[in-house]
Amino acid sequence: VTRDQAHPYRVDDRIRQGFTRQGLMTHLGAELIDAHNGVVTIRLQHRPELSQHRGLMHAGALSAIADTAGGFAALSLMDEGSDVLTVEYKLNLLAPADGDHVEARGTVLRSGRTLTVCQLDVWAVDGDRRTAVAVGQQTLIRTEARADA
Amino acid sequence: VTRDQAHPYRVDDRIRQGFTRQGLMTHLGAELIDAHNGVVTIRLQHRPELSQHRGLMHAGALSAIADTAGGFAALSLMDEGSDVLTVEYKLNLLAPADGDHVEARGTVLRSGRTLTVCQLDVWAVDGDRRTAVAVGQQTLIRTEARADA
Amino acid sequence: VTRDQAHPYRVDDRIRQGFTRQGLMTHLGAELIDAHNGVVTIRLQHRPELSQHRGLMHAGALSAIADTAGGFAALSLMDEGSDVLTVEYKLNLLAPADGDHVEARGTVLRSGRTLTVCQLDVWAVDGDRRTAVAVGQQTLIRTEARADA
Amino acid sequence: VTRDQAHPYRVDDRIRQGFTRQGLMTHLGAELIDAHNGVVTIRLQHRPELSQHRGLMHAGALSAIADTAGGFAALSLMDEGSDVLTVEYKLNLLAPADGDHVEARGTVLRSGRTLTVCQLDVWAVDGDRRTAVAVGQQTLIRTEARADA
Repeated sequence: VTRDQAHPYRVDDRIRQGFTRQGLMTHLGAELIDAHNGVVTIRLQHRPELSQHRGLMHAGALSAIADTAGGFAALSLMDEGSDVLTVEYKLNLLAPADGDHVEARGTVLRSGRTLTVCQLDVWAVDGDRRTAVAVGQQTLIRTEARADA
Repeated sequence: VTRDQAHPYRVDDRIRQGFTRQGLMTHLGAELIDAHNGVVTIRLQHRPELSQHRGLMHAGALSAIADTAGGFAALSLMDEGSDVLTVEYKLNLLAPADGDHVEARGTVLRSGRTLTVCQLDVWAVDGDRRTAVAVGQQTLIRTEARADA
Repeated sequence: VTRDQAHPYRVDDRIRQGFTRQGLMTHLGAELIDAHNGVVTIRLQHRPELSQHRGLMHAGALSAIADTAGGFAALSLMDEGSDVLTVEYKLNLLAPADGDHVEARGTVLRSGRTLTVCQLDVWAVDGDRRTAVAVGQQTLIRTEARADA
Repeated sequence: VTRDQAHPYRVDDRIRQGFTRQGLMTHLGAELIDAHNGVVTIRLQHRPELSQHRGLMHAGALSAIADTAGGFAALSLMDEGSDVLTVEYKLNLLAPADGDHVEARGTVLRSGRTLTVCQLDVWAVDGDRRTAVAVGQQTLIRTEARADA
């Protein structure tokens, strides 16, 4: 909470453009709600197309937005000629993703010349109630942005 | 290859029913092509709705089918009163997922009373050429299947 | 820092007894400096017996104390009839472990009936300077303590 | 087994020299028994100095030799001017490490210009019986070897 007060929501143009080009984010219905200075938050409304066999939100949907949040968090600290690729990530699922929607946040822990390490957090949100549903760690590598991308 | 010859493709009814109930697998366009005796393979055709910002298949899509393959591989060794939840998983991305489609395979490494550990493998397939694009490890926990599920 | 002020160092007797029985902790020269209420901190002085081939502290030594800190953090929230086993853990190494000594802290993120999830943090300490050298996540399972253990 | 027949044990000089310089490997009593061409195996005899609080071999000891095996497996495929650092690893513990000794094997899965990914396997060995006790994945980064190292 303290942290969120110190980090008002804002979306950098470059991150918005990258997000908009991701077919999967649109297909899942994900929204970019915060993206600057090493922290990125993505929101995903629950709907039947995102469920596993019991009707809960599928871990794969949580992973997709968590991985994306970490990737853009890393990118938000790099210059315009850079792009990133996920090297690996690990996610612990803590609780079922009940509720109205989920939010995934990627936060840069270490930003190196070649590698970036992010913390990943996913919460289920139901009105005022937030429940931690997943935590993770992610490693990313800086690459050259392609002119045509 | 040797392994595949010893393990002909076949899909158990119970796994097919569970797979069919997963809204996300349908929404992504995933197909269950092998599911019995601790090994499950899922195929996913590449299309624009699954891309990241460079047009490659999104790591989140790979994760979703890899996590699902491991989950059903675990379930395929349990009795009818059981269900599984993913506790955690970790995925290393080895190469861009180029090609026509990808295949994710979950293989049970250890099947305990409470916990199951799976190996996850994802390949990009282009005609006869298969390229490893991701490898992972996954931990799952057995739960009681709900009568209403 | 805020956190440490809210959590004064104290070592529960049961955790101290378990720690003392770990041959590896004594062999490495590790000290238990804080252990109660879901948070455990272990200190390890650098010496040549703990080095890798460049003279830095070996990642295996960092892992050993991080895994132990998480295990006892989990145990500190359980009743006397319980013991824990590590199911899995993942560690990202952020920086070389220079300095006089390192401190590993395990913090319980989720304490369930069967599974516990911990955050792992390792710092290199050199006088007043603390540098994060590793972060990790760990999953543990509750078992029955053996009468003879 | 098939694999071991195709890969006779042999230790490259450069890997032996690096191993010998690791204070921790000597302190734990670890032996390098195979090290060439992307595969490295390390053996560790059980003794009280390596135990956790129940007398089993400590997961930290298993981790130390698994991480080292992967690191030298990566190095065995690089030229003389290179060194490696572990970026991260993840280990699943499958069974208690009973028996006379354990063997950890690191195998390179992907060898890139910057990053290497290894599979880690640890077995407990008791006479002719081998039991898988841990499996893992590891990411390493190539660095310049220092002239003075």
